Amino acid sequence: MISLDEKFKALLADHAPGQEVRQDLGDLDTIMRGERLAGTPVDFSHGDVDAFPPTPGSDEVWKEGFNKGGRQAYTEYRGALEIRNGLAVRLGKFTGRPIDADSELIITPGTQGALFLALGATVTDRTKVAVVEPDYFANRKLVKFFGGEIVPIPLHYQRRSQEHGIDLDRLESAFKSGTTAFVFSTPNNPTGLVYSSSTISAIAALAAQYDVTVIVDQLYSRMIYRGEVYAHLRSCSVQPRNLITIMGPSKTESLSGFRLGVAFGESGLIDRMESLQAIVSLRAAGYNQAALKTWFQEPPGWLENRIVEHEAIRDELLSVFRAANLKTATPQAGSYLFPQLPKLCVDLYTFVRLLRHQANATVTPGTEFGPEFTDSIRLNFSQDHAAAVAAAERIVKMVERYSL
Amino acid sequence: MISLDEKFKALLADHAPGQEVRQDLGDLDTIMRGERLAGTPVDFSHGDVDAFPPTPGSDEVWKEGFNKGGRQAYTEYRGALEIRNGLAVRLGKFTGRPIDADSELIITPGTQGALFLALGATVTDRTKVAVVEPDYFANRKLVKFFGGEIVPIPLHYQRRSQEHGIDLDRLESAFKSGTTAFVFSTPNNPTGLVYSSSTISAIAALAAQYDVTVIVDQLYSRMIYRGEVYAHLRSCSVQPRNLITIMGPSKTESLSGFRLGVAFGESGLIDRMESLQAIVSLRAAGYNQAALKTWFQEPPGWLENRIVEHEAIRDELLSVFRAANLKTATPQAGSYLFPQLPKLCVDLYTFVRLLRHQANATVTPGTEFGPEFTDSIRLNFSQDHAAAVAAAERIVKMVERYSL
Repeated sequence: MISLDEKFKALLADHAPGQEVRQDLGDLDTIMRGERLAGTPVDFSHGDVDAFPPTPGSDEVWKEGFNKGGRQAYTEYRGALEIRNGLAVRLGKFTGRPIDADSELIITPGTQGALFLALGATVTDRTKVAVVEPDYFANRKLVKFFGGEIVPIPLHYQRRSQEHGIDLDRLESAFKSGTTAFVFSTPNNPTGLVYSSSTISAIAALAAQYDVTVIVDQLYSRMIYRGEVYAHLRSCSVQPRNLITIMGPSKTESLSGFRLGVAFGESGLIDRMESLQAIVSLRAAGYNQAALKTWFQEPPGWLENRIVEHEAIRDELLSVFRAANLKTATPQAGSYLFPQLPKLCVDLYTFVRLLRHQANATVTPGTEFGPEFTDSIRLNFSQDHAAAVAAAERIVKMVERYSL
Repeated sequence: MISLDEKFKALLADHAPGQEVRQDLGDLDTIMRGERLAGTPVDFSHGDVDAFPPTPGSDEVWKEGFNKGGRQAYTEYRGALEIRNGLAVRLGKFTGRPIDADSELIITPGTQGALFLALGATVTDRTKVAVVEPDYFANRKLVKFFGGEIVPIPLHYQRRSQEHGIDLDRLESAFKSGTTAFVFSTPNNPTGLVYSSSTISAIAALAAQYDVTVIVDQLYSRMIYRGEVYAHLRSCSVQPRNLITIMGPSKTESLSGFRLGVAFGESGLIDRMESLQAIVSLRAAGYNQAALKTWFQEPPGWLENRIVEHEAIRDELLSVFRAANLKTATPQAGSYLFPQLPKLCVDLYTFVRLLRHQANATVTPGTEFGPEFTDSIRLNFSQDHAAAVAAAERIVKMVERYSL
């Protein structure tokens, strides 16, 4: 049994993206090396929805929902059936397996909401959960909050090679020794690594063999760069008995201000997720659900253009970091970079605060993604192109100033 | 340790308001007594935001928030400071004690979200929680989900007398014997009972004496009928160390489609609630938070008018039910009625399904508010006046048909 104090120590959000404004920067002037570095402030902790605005028409669709009144305000806890019907068709097509709109899909308050419900429906005291490191910071916190035990699975992300990805032998030993759930993101947050088709098939087969529940976070699976291949776990021929796929329009589509996500898969788990939703927040905001009508129905060329623009930013930031010898894997998808820093004369949290205070650049410390990433930072490069490049150059200068 | 199956059995939402559409009505024709009763369908499971529309201008304020872009989309997890600043002043004034906007207030996804976070910050395995019966259905579910134990405190609501309200001796014995938290709503959901000033002072004093955390749900505290007096626990001179007050604009103000609520009180608990919010759904939808700018700033006369209109519906429904000898307490506030039915020839769940199938009236079974209320139904009478009265008359006819 875990005490409330321990439970909440595991949840500390002091270094979580978006919370930087709550940090005390007061003492930094005394340890600052050199002057401030001027430039447009860039908050790499999340994407900039002003640089990449929400899907065209999403506000008008919201207004139509509002005008619909009570029917749109009070939906089933799992979301409006009319909207689920459309989503099930489009998401089924995208992920390579049909979805029953009535029993296999739930609309959630953001992808975060979907993860919370999926893990809440799966994890209780002492449930062993395989968690990839590095991976989205909330995965570990959620497992701990529900009383589960983390079985870490390292991700080899730094270079493309035979060992690129997770160690499947290690995953199998975890499954063999009592792990009953596996949660991971592909494209990986924070590295942008896309799990290969053969790895995805192997995961599906192992999970089926050992009857492990799989929760796969595919939040960034629409933003795949040129030459990359994406594999949906749902489309594998062998399927685990319990599989939940999670997606949402908060990133590529910039609809984060609407707090919308979806989870789809095994109907028993979806039922549980809805029961939990009923006591967590009842439903995703009714009027906002209407914005999902624009999803996977954007104007022709809109998505392709968004990908090209992000690829250009990615490539330029990679050159900036690599020219300064910061080891940085090439993201195959999504908008995250996870550069590794050299040894510094201050600890990571202090450096991150200095970046914000001295160089107008907000980044997320690597430790949010796994305890051992004390030498990495994460950047969401869905930003104004020129401002992002200038901020990356400031980060490089800061690294030089604070290197040992 | 509670298993996942047990945990989710406690959460079953089959009879929860709003979920009726998922029920199977197929077998009812065989047991129906008499013909169908025609009439405009009325869904008493929640208020009708078409009959009582959202606060004027709430959609325009939403649009202003949307146009603000990233700043409004990505707020702190506890909500936009600018909005909290305004709310803290207005809510502090309303509840009789100042609120620090930075440390003592969190914006949540609905009042449900606030309850979830408050109980999640307070209850863990074997925490004893005093829960009033009848009271809002989620309170009991939340305590069970977090592993706590319910200590029931009966509410005497049927008639005004010395015993009207809860038994304070019983509450004190609960506090004496290891109960560390107390959650209740005033005005009470489902009965509309308002806790008297002396009871509220006594609760504050007892909680202070035994160091019990109090979570008070004041969702309906703006809709107080003529001649009634409302007491805010926050305004008592003796204060418990840990007090959280919960409110929201979903009911009186009909902003339920925005999913907005607030919790305010002890800063350590608010911090925990924010840490939990970070893994539950990050934040209340950013653009929606803007709608809180209309709250407690409605046009002059708007609230008074809304109260008068509800009082008129209340009085007419009370006459209809009392003329048929259905024992129904007079709600002092809010828009719930909790009539008691005579012995019927079918069980409560069947009768509720028959009401929906045969009489176009959706109500919530009393058992959602406490296990012993197998002879009561709850109605939210925030409905079109004429349609509500006609539906109440159909309910009376149905009771006559199915009486033993």
